[in-house]
Amino acid sequence: MLKLHFAPNSRAGRIVWLLEELGLEYEINKMAFHPKDLKSDAHRDRHPLGRVPVLEDGDLVLWESGAIVEYILERFENGGLKPPVDDSRWPKYQQWFHYCEGMVMPPVNTIVVQTILLPPDRRDETALKQAQKLLTRALAPVDEALAGKEYLIGDFSAADVMLGHACFMSNRVGCVTDEMTNLKGYVERIAARPHFQTAITMQ
Amino acid sequence: MLKLHFAPNSRAGRIVWLLEELGLEYEINKMAFHPKDLKSDAHRDRHPLGRVPVLEDGDLVLWESGAIVEYILERFENGGLKPPVDDSRWPKYQQWFHYCEGMVMPPVNTIVVQTILLPPDRRDETALKQAQKLLTRALAPVDEALAGKEYLIGDFSAADVMLGHACFMSNRVGCVTDEMTNLKGYVERIAARPHFQTAITMQ
Repeated sequence: MLKLHFAPNSRAGRIVWLLEELGLEYEINKMAFHPKDLKSDAHRDRHPLGRVPVLEDGDLVLWESGAIVEYILERFENGGLKPPVDDSRWPKYQQWFHYCEGMVMPPVNTIVVQTILLPPDRRDETALKQAQKLLTRALAPVDEALAGKEYLIGDFSAADVMLGHACFMSNRVGCVTDEMTNLKGYVERIAARPHFQTAITMQ
Repeated sequence: MLKLHFAPNSRAGRIVWLLEELGLEYEINKMAFHPKDLKSDAHRDRHPLGRVPVLEDGDLVLWESGAIVEYILERFENGGLKPPVDDSRWPKYQQWFHYCEGMVMPPVNTIVVQTILLPPDRRDETALKQAQKLLTRALAPVDEALAGKEYLIGDFSAADVMLGHACFMSNRVGCVTDEMTNLKGYVERIAARPHFQTAITMQ
């Protein structure tokens, strides 16, 4: 059976969300988002940097949420969450899937580091402000693309599992502005999905 | 015909490299890595943030190097650069493909911003040092994975087009240390590929 190594408030939530949307069975190793678990010898044997998510399937140990999403969709169950290659929606599915880590998550990470993870005396106001500006800019094209659409390519897809999760995090750190009306509605639709709620409230 | 919007010293080099490796014909719009081109109205019509690469194919305008690589491999020519889904190398192909933007490029970007793009009086030594530390850490698992291998999954693949390019950039900014002997050799092998040289020297 698939085994997911998980910590709350991390990209591991994407994988719980996907597995729940697809109705797949899985085991879960719930760790604290804390060095005592993530930097433990046991977890460093799975991922030398102590990151989550990690997916185990028999002898395979797989990192990177994007790769794990692909693995689950292609090897286990697609559930209509990834258009076929010849589908007209497939190129933009790919674009938004990659936009998540390429454009949105780097400033989200910096903001989390500069507002939560670092002790106050080591925080850097300039780095924080710069990341907030970058993130707001990176979200504008997503807001625009969502005009007249429920989800990124119309119907809900695994691109939403990646980028929708990143937009939810962006909203949580205060960077989805009131002017981004399409994006605000999108984050609300994501947050209202029962399987997303399961994932985001899991400890 | 495929049309690539390009600027030197950017992720657009990945796409030139891939197109050359595959022997595909393409048009290219060579821009300067400068706001006069990248932030021009013409380019902002293609990508609202003025980023490269952008690929045009008829009416389709596609962003994100990872998505463009997928598009070329799946819709045009695979060239043996992506293992099939049931191949035992496919999961780690996916992992390293996504590791590029997930783990390696965020600190590379910060280092480039803090050493080249920002004027000296606006640079932040703390942010630079932190990014250098992060990048060195992120490269260690790549060095380890390359033990006894020429390329990330053995044979050259599109995972090398993504992560190999990022490792070349990491070496250029001084973060591939002498102790990372596998990674040093890998960067040399990448740099010696004729089609990589075409891409990296293109202005």
